Amino acid sequence: MTTETKPGSRERLLEAAATLTYRDGVNIGVDALCKAAGVSKRSMYQLFESKDELLAASLEERTSTYVATLLPTADDGRSPRERILHVFDQLTSQAAAPDFQGCRFLVVQIELKDQSHPASRVAHRVKENLTAFFRAEAEKGGASDPYLLARQLILVFDGASARAGIKADTPTGLITPTVTTLLDAANMR
Amino acid sequence: MTTETKPGSRERLLEAAATLTYRDGVNIGVDALCKAAGVSKRSMYQLFESKDELLAASLEERTSTYVATLLPTADDGRSPRERILHVFDQLTSQAAAPDFQGCRFLVVQIELKDQSHPASRVAHRVKENLTAFFRAEAEKGGASDPYLLARQLILVFDGASARAGIKADTPTGLITPTVTTLLDAANMR
Repeated sequence: MTTETKPGSRERLLEAAATLTYRDGVNIGVDALCKAAGVSKRSMYQLFESKDELLAASLEERTSTYVATLLPTADDGRSPRERILHVFDQLTSQAAAPDFQGCRFLVVQIELKDQSHPASRVAHRVKENLTAFFRAEAEKGGASDPYLLARQLILVFDGASARAGIKADTPTGLITPTVTTLLDAANMR
Repeated sequence: MTTETKPGSRERLLEAAATLTYRDGVNIGVDALCKAAGVSKRSMYQLFESKDELLAASLEERTSTYVATLLPTADDGRSPRERILHVFDQLTSQAAAPDFQGCRFLVVQIELKDQSHPASRVAHRVKENLTAFFRAEAEKGGASDPYLLARQLILVFDGASARAGIKADTPTGLITPTVTTLLDAANMR
């Protein structure tokens, strides 16, 4: 990074990359990203090695908000079962937004079709962490098979998110009975 | 269509569009498609109004194979429950292929981000028909809520397919217990 880069350029590029990639897909051009951010291409390449790195950084930037919005706070006094259902209630709320196109961390991996891409790696880690949350709660709640239950929950999360993103269905009236059935079958408290 | 177009050009374009779009995404260029098909751009535009129409036609072309591979034959003597599980067994087999990137009819809709695109319409209809199959079998099997069960099954289908496509998980050891739990909860025969 050199002193030529204006303050805020990095933040504006991250914001433009996150917003435009989600709206238009990962093939959005560098010109469009720079234009939206009001940053020259020269400055962009001073800040990020490549568009791939910018995309990965923009996903990384969204991670903490994503986690804070979806997950319950630690030790909130609720049962593991309620804490899991909280995540799905949050997804239901998110999916109701008119510009919802599915979980960005799933969509980017589907679009990139390359698990070694730096942005795929970020996205993969975020979803692995969500799966780990499900598994930890499943263990606390005495699930008969916490590993299987966690896999089922992230499957339902991604399936509901993808289908809501393409406007094929909505999680309302679907996700709660589905998750409840899986929690019951696992004897979750 | 004029007599200038060589025989087989249409078929080769449909094949190239289906294969390359699935492998590389919907942003694959017309030049790449024509090159792979060994067809001039001029001929392509004699056969298809636009790349969008070519993409829609290539999905349409794959529909009958998709249905034949996934669905059981009519009146095969098996119970509705077994006929539903057959679909998920087929998905499990498909997902084991190294080049599996998820159900093409889901992926194309996620990538296009436009439900009015002709290819999105084809893909949407194909998945609606699969959902209708689930619902019809759910009704035959006496499910307590056939509409809910059908929504749950297509959610699991798309979730498992998407996660297998990004190599985040595999349907093996996951999809059968999940579907069985949902069928049991619906009191399906």
